[in-house]
Amino acid sequence: MTMQAADTVRFCEGAQLLPVHGVRGGRPFDVQDWVAEEVPVALEYNGISHAVMLATPLDLEDFALGFSLSEGILDEAHELYSVEAEQSALGFTVHMQVSSAAFARLRQRRRSMAGRTGCGLCGTESLTQVAREIPVLRDDAAVRFGREAIGRAMSQLPSQQTLQEATGAVHAAAWCSPDGEVMWLREDVGRHNALDKLVGALAANDVDASGGFIAVTSRASFEMVQKAAMAGAPLLAAVSAPTSFAVTTAQRAGLTLVGFVRQEDLGVYSHPQRLR
Amino acid sequence: MTMQAADTVRFCEGAQLLPVHGVRGGRPFDVQDWVAEEVPVALEYNGISHAVMLATPLDLEDFALGFSLSEGILDEAHELYSVEAEQSALGFTVHMQVSSAAFARLRQRRRSMAGRTGCGLCGTESLTQVAREIPVLRDDAAVRFGREAIGRAMSQLPSQQTLQEATGAVHAAAWCSPDGEVMWLREDVGRHNALDKLVGALAANDVDASGGFIAVTSRASFEMVQKAAMAGAPLLAAVSAPTSFAVTTAQRAGLTLVGFVRQEDLGVYSHPQRLR
Repeated sequence: MTMQAADTVRFCEGAQLLPVHGVRGGRPFDVQDWVAEEVPVALEYNGISHAVMLATPLDLEDFALGFSLSEGILDEAHELYSVEAEQSALGFTVHMQVSSAAFARLRQRRRSMAGRTGCGLCGTESLTQVAREIPVLRDDAAVRFGREAIGRAMSQLPSQQTLQEATGAVHAAAWCSPDGEVMWLREDVGRHNALDKLVGALAANDVDASGGFIAVTSRASFEMVQKAAMAGAPLLAAVSAPTSFAVTTAQRAGLTLVGFVRQEDLGVYSHPQRLR
Repeated sequence: MTMQAADTVRFCEGAQLLPVHGVRGGRPFDVQDWVAEEVPVALEYNGISHAVMLATPLDLEDFALGFSLSEGILDEAHELYSVEAEQSALGFTVHMQVSSAAFARLRQRRRSMAGRTGCGLCGTESLTQVAREIPVLRDDAAVRFGREAIGRAMSQLPSQQTLQEATGAVHAAAWCSPDGEVMWLREDVGRHNALDKLVGALAANDVDASGGFIAVTSRASFEMVQKAAMAGAPLLAAVSAPTSFAVTTAQRAGLTLVGFVRQEDLGVYSHPQRLR
């Protein structure tokens, strides 16, 4: 953890050693401390720049694939032909080659926004696009989760959050088996990025997200629910609180939203039938 | 706090009462709980839509003014002639009337992005624009802060975070006097929004941000440092960790960045000369 870790960790991917002037118990000290890296990452499709995100430069291939799936730019992982991250003094550019169908969708979407967009979803018309179409998850009666499994997964997270342990600055998103084993985990300074990286890792490894649940170390906002639902995960468990828009989106998408997980205590905000 | 608050709080602005199925100590229960509101908020300048943000619909006038100042769309608060938030079924639209000089700047910036922008800062060229010009704070030897003042401010925050107390889902940004009194505080589901709201509140009330410091309940990312520096605050104190880009930006902007504030313990990541 902070202001101590440098002694014990010799290298930490995704972090930099920086000098920090600390005060503890009234006594000043100087130390080299691990600080989580945050860099601009430009995402490029078939040579066309699309967006710049601030992210931790780990697992950028997963990030690019997951972002593309979450945003609906790709329907399937195999529409991404190649992905390559290139570093410059200013940050990273992730070059993606995508199928012509995916690129046509992207161009169509961009054309409809061009000329009136400053950043993000834009304009009064676009208020209607914020909650874009999300696939409604079917309720498979065979997919049920015990609350002890959710508690077990959440309590396993810290031991796998290596970057968080060194820096105290990053979130994690994990995909867990029905009995609460953490199978895949990704970290990022941004919680949305961590979830996009997880979604990309699952897709790249042919993991069907519908067979388990997603656990996140953050709160659950609208976008977290949207990404989990796009990935086909039936349940999203957050260590902290949901927002109102997250709850209504989860209700609509057929996703079970669980918050405030503390060991076996928790709150269920939508579709509680999946909880045993 | 969660799954209890509904009994004791009869009305909470910025939150909704929603049903939650809880489990505590192995025993299930049903309750109405306060959940923080998150809604799409469209920002419109002189009738032109600019961006849609997800935010808590409190202090939207402060948000609009603060966002406009943080983004450099407005140089001064008086360039904002009027601001009006309109609610619809889809969210809020904040109509702003700004000076012709500010609107010309905005159009120029938008024209340079039109046609190639999907969301946010775009394109390889735009990697250069991420760290756009930030005014460098001068170091006034009369502006010094004691670490006990920073600890005092941070410990005062919870008692003023009314929405956080009810929902557990929101961040706060506060402007504090040099002796650590919390003078202005704003809350939002997004930490960037909370800081924009604070910046807007200070500007609307003619408070010179350079005479105190800003305390936030979150981590300190690049954008948090950028907004604090744009507002002219000489010191940003975060309860949690900074990122690498936050540290290098603070060093460049002449801002004192403090993290991991715990009572009188803290870490200083840039310009420690302002700490007594």
